[in-house]
Amino acid sequence: MTHNAFQDYYPDHMAHCYGCGRLNDQGHHIRSYWDGEESVCHFMPEPKHISIPGYVYGGLLASLIDCHGTGTAAAAGYRAEGRTMDSEPALRYLTASLHVEYLHPTPLGVLLEVRGRVKEVRGRRVVIAEWITANAETTVRGEVAAVQVPDGLVQELLARRGTA
Amino acid sequence: MTHNAFQDYYPDHMAHCYGCGRLNDQGHHIRSYWDGEESVCHFMPEPKHISIPGYVYGGLLASLIDCHGTGTAAAAGYRAEGRTMDSEPALRYLTASLHVEYLHPTPLGVLLEVRGRVKEVRGRRVVIAEWITANAETTVRGEVAAVQVPDGLVQELLARRGTA
Repeated sequence: MTHNAFQDYYPDHMAHCYGCGRLNDQGHHIRSYWDGEESVCHFMPEPKHISIPGYVYGGLLASLIDCHGTGTAAAAGYRAEGRTMDSEPALRYLTASLHVEYLHPTPLGVLLEVRGRVKEVRGRRVVIAEWITANAETTVRGEVAAVQVPDGLVQELLARRGTA
Repeated sequence: MTHNAFQDYYPDHMAHCYGCGRLNDQGHHIRSYWDGEESVCHFMPEPKHISIPGYVYGGLLASLIDCHGTGTAAAAGYRAEGRTMDSEPALRYLTASLHVEYLHPTPLGVLLEVRGRVKEVRGRRVVIAEWITANAETTVRGEVAAVQVPDGLVQELLARRGTA
């Protein structure tokens, strides 16, 4: 049994994401775990994350769906290969597309639960279905398609911006 | 000729959004304008808004698509009724769904241009097609479906959270 989150296993150069990077000291630090066949993440929005007063703004909810989705895709990739997330080679995923349905306004000041389920694995592409629950009500449904990218491509992107 | 943004016309109780509210002193303050048949918004991400180093994280890009989309939906609603955004009754829009395609990594440290075009108006539902350009490259495409909500419903939501 480990208490590490999926995001704890991201290599350093993938760990600066404002949504989920452990090395971004101003970010959200989203942390995701397996809970049986589903993945789960708990997150408490800050008072400033307002849509209309008393409710969470859509951009943060989209960010939770995005980062929890790519985290779940990565964990699913390792699981499909029957190995742990600290084994080599590391698998890196980036978001190809994100879809979010806002079913009901999401209350602010409430611990949110984000859940994910692997919907499809086709080659390097993984689709994660997700939903967000607040006060026992599902307020958001979403879907992320994440693509596994070779580390060489990530290094090329970093070099292009002078951040390698 | 006015230099007011769409969001400057939001009534006070709709102006606290972290993405686009003029009254949220910690938010992004997204500002959108007409440019002919398209709407446009310029936004400079902060250095902390990292995906991988040197690139913008997906949650912020989703937030830009979301808030620029609802702003454009509101402006389109007034335009369809042939009246200005400071006329009564005020029209309020909330996001029903959000779709974002990440075509290429979006560079950080570059002024982003978000553009929108009204794709469909059906009753109270408005669909806005959008795209984000950085360094003359379109890196993101998105779509927002926004729904016009009666002010009575907004007041009821505020009252339910004690924020009326």
